[in-house]
Amino acid sequence: MHGTQKTDRPLPGFVGGTLDRVDHVRTNPALLAQAFADPAARRLVLDGLEPVEVEGHLVLEPIGADAQMMDHVLLGVDRQARPIFARLVKDLGPNLVPTPRSRAIAGLIPADEVALYGAARSLVHWHARHPFCSVCGGATQAVKAGWSRRCETCGAEHFPRTDPVVIMLAEHEGRVLLGRQHSWPEGRYSALAGFVEPGETIEEAVAREIHEEAGVRVHSVRYVMSQPWPFPSSLMIACVAQAQDDALRIDETEIEHAFWCDADGVRAAMAGDSDAPFVAPPQMAVAWHLLDHWLGKVVPAAPSA
Amino acid sequence: MHGTQKTDRPLPGFVGGTLDRVDHVRTNPALLAQAFADPAARRLVLDGLEPVEVEGHLVLEPIGADAQMMDHVLLGVDRQARPIFARLVKDLGPNLVPTPRSRAIAGLIPADEVALYGAARSLVHWHARHPFCSVCGGATQAVKAGWSRRCETCGAEHFPRTDPVVIMLAEHEGRVLLGRQHSWPEGRYSALAGFVEPGETIEEAVAREIHEEAGVRVHSVRYVMSQPWPFPSSLMIACVAQAQDDALRIDETEIEHAFWCDADGVRAAMAGDSDAPFVAPPQMAVAWHLLDHWLGKVVPAAPSA
Repeated sequence: MHGTQKTDRPLPGFVGGTLDRVDHVRTNPALLAQAFADPAARRLVLDGLEPVEVEGHLVLEPIGADAQMMDHVLLGVDRQARPIFARLVKDLGPNLVPTPRSRAIAGLIPADEVALYGAARSLVHWHARHPFCSVCGGATQAVKAGWSRRCETCGAEHFPRTDPVVIMLAEHEGRVLLGRQHSWPEGRYSALAGFVEPGETIEEAVAREIHEEAGVRVHSVRYVMSQPWPFPSSLMIACVAQAQDDALRIDETEIEHAFWCDADGVRAAMAGDSDAPFVAPPQMAVAWHLLDHWLGKVVPAAPSA
Repeated sequence: MHGTQKTDRPLPGFVGGTLDRVDHVRTNPALLAQAFADPAARRLVLDGLEPVEVEGHLVLEPIGADAQMMDHVLLGVDRQARPIFARLVKDLGPNLVPTPRSRAIAGLIPADEVALYGAARSLVHWHARHPFCSVCGGATQAVKAGWSRRCETCGAEHFPRTDPVVIMLAEHEGRVLLGRQHSWPEGRYSALAGFVEPGETIEEAVAREIHEEAGVRVHSVRYVMSQPWPFPSSLMIACVAQAQDDALRIDETEIEHAFWCDADGVRAAMAGDSDAPFVAPPQMAVAWHLLDHWLGKVVPAAPSA
């Protein structure tokens, strides 16, 4: 319900954008030219794909008189009626992997600015990876205010990607299944996750991923919330599923380890206790919010001491 | 919950696949070669992207001895332990638009075969549109059993797309908002829909699309179900949202008309009554199931006569 309901809790990172995306401007050359030439228009300053933060805010700069609209994407119009753009970059160099800075940004600036950065990052990244047409190999050009690229040779139109990813807790008798990847910081565990594949539902993807990674069969998949994750362009779809039993058969090419954790253990980890059974994911990650949601719903298997 | 729970109702089209996708085989050359050489292995027969049905089933053919694995995608292993492949096609010609045959297939063959066809169609279509690398323009080659393409020039790896689409009913005082596109058959109305964009949640996309298309502000977005839609590769995410009021401001470039329909009207349309206020979407569409779900939940604004 994020973005449409008030809540006491912090939002996951990249959720809660407030820009009006003004879809009708993207395909209207006159309105677009007017927005680009608007003296109030601003351009988000990025360092490659990395955010630039000064005194708790992203940096927005005026757009120079020599700038070309076709080198920009129109992110939307902000609450001060300012058209907000990002500059498209032809060559990002090899450094497309998010640095600690881009992950830490969620703690430094307001939620709506984190969301603005996330959208800009995904779009700038996508353009930089699509100067050529996948159909014919010809050169492509940004069109529709940066919301599409058209091939100059064959005319094919290409749209920015958004890759749905399921991230989920399997639940069994008051405990949830947590796993860790080989590359993660010591002690960190989180919900299992994986890309939704062509030809499957969200629920089928949840069941397939949990079975592939941990050998557990699940049913009664329940959607909880979603989050855009701009590394580079995922849509995280967070769910809880009921496990048939708690026997694990871990696929060690996918995850390093997995275990069932009870509510006390999850609560201790979320509180950052030093003797917690694992290190919780950061609050910007939807996994933190999924665990928090689960703690609010869980029925303990036995009375707690 | 489709695919993981039994239900009395028919499934939306393309939901309910039963193949084991054997992810571990895709990246294991020895296991993959074994699967491809398995005398039990079968290849799904397609006519371009169109399904081929004989006596209520898809047609599966043995794989010839001169066939090359790299020209195929491994869809999975069926319940008879047969590896099932589809052949990748270099040139599909101009006819990528689904014909009535590919939409009618859901009524002709079992649900799991419809799902198999949907996955195959999305993958074959994606490969045909990606012989070149979007990063450098070089030639790409199918790898990982057809679940990826690698650029022979720059080494970039490209993955099949799955494009999340929100499809939703706005609800207001016992009525739902239905719209029709200019191109639809006469009288047909359905839920509004649109692509999830980079940088937004499912809930944010629902709110944005309803506002863009009909000028209605919504809150309390609730996820209902999902469906893969292989024209070419959407993941339909069906939701219900609460409208703040019922004033409409229709964007006529997006939709031709929209109106609020009460439960009696929806019920009549679903029953195919000739005097119903609209023609319902087909049962294979998730919109049909979303309307059916809503009818089961709706609280009438006034006692029905």
